Amino acid sequence: MKIEQLGRHILVEFYNCDKEVLNNHSEIEKHMNEAAIRSNATIVQSAFHTFNPWGVSGAVIIQESHLTIHTWPEFGYAAVDLFTCGDSVNPWIGFEYLSNSLKAEKWETSEVPRGPVDKIKAFAKEDLGEVHFKPQTDSEIAS
Amino acid sequence: MKIEQLGRHILVEFYNCDKEVLNNHSEIEKHMNEAAIRSNATIVQSAFHTFNPWGVSGAVIIQESHLTIHTWPEFGYAAVDLFTCGDSVNPWIGFEYLSNSLKAEKWETSEVPRGPVDKIKAFAKEDLGEVHFKPQTDSEIAS
Repeated sequence: MKIEQLGRHILVEFYNCDKEVLNNHSEIEKHMNEAAIRSNATIVQSAFHTFNPWGVSGAVIIQESHLTIHTWPEFGYAAVDLFTCGDSVNPWIGFEYLSNSLKAEKWETSEVPRGPVDKIKAFAKEDLGEVHFKPQTDSEIAS
Repeated sequence: MKIEQLGRHILVEFYNCDKEVLNNHSEIEKHMNEAAIRSNATIVQSAFHTFNPWGVSGAVIIQESHLTIHTWPEFGYAAVDLFTCGDSVNPWIGFEYLSNSLKAEKWETSEVPRGPVDKIKAFAKEDLGEVHFKPQTDSEIAS
């Protein structure tokens, strides 16, 4: 069976990662942006922050939703989210890339559907017509 | 029973919201920041983006993790995440505030544990000592 949904959201716990990578702001930012690009997402904005004494947090807002990360270098642990909408992106490629670049020895993932179309339609008070993720066209992005 | 975890992550589907609010960049940014503050979180950075022709996406990076939103004004739908670490914050207060400010008529939530301490310890190769979320002190923030 197929269930229509706007997006998919992968929640990842990365265990026993490289502690130096986890505490390196520029590496984390680079890897998160690269994960977005490899997933075929379009980056629109990003925000990263280094904590004192340890850890990096950040979000990459993509046209298709977002990627986020929070690292605990002292525990070798990172919490990553890859939330993407539409069929043109594949967040699992970004996950694969991050598991390598963070040098994670173990991980756990779960995928959660986001924006269930049946419910969006059922709760609306008017006919919404076709409900699906509409990627922007190049002309819309440029305007 | 109690399970030790670094954080908690609330995933929310907001249905049949006020379409004008969902399409208003400054309102969305204001409400997300206010949701963080009301949850007793400390905002460190934020990034919001308005899509053409519709919709706002954004992330608020907090010292305790993040809040994100993606809105589909045309469907009255918004996907919200409230991911917080430590005992000093309560993301459910932020959820409550957002359900009101987006004027959502229906919603679905799920809460996912993040950073399970038993697994972080089990997968580490050395003794990590005490594993818990350590909020920054004021002096650390200032330095």
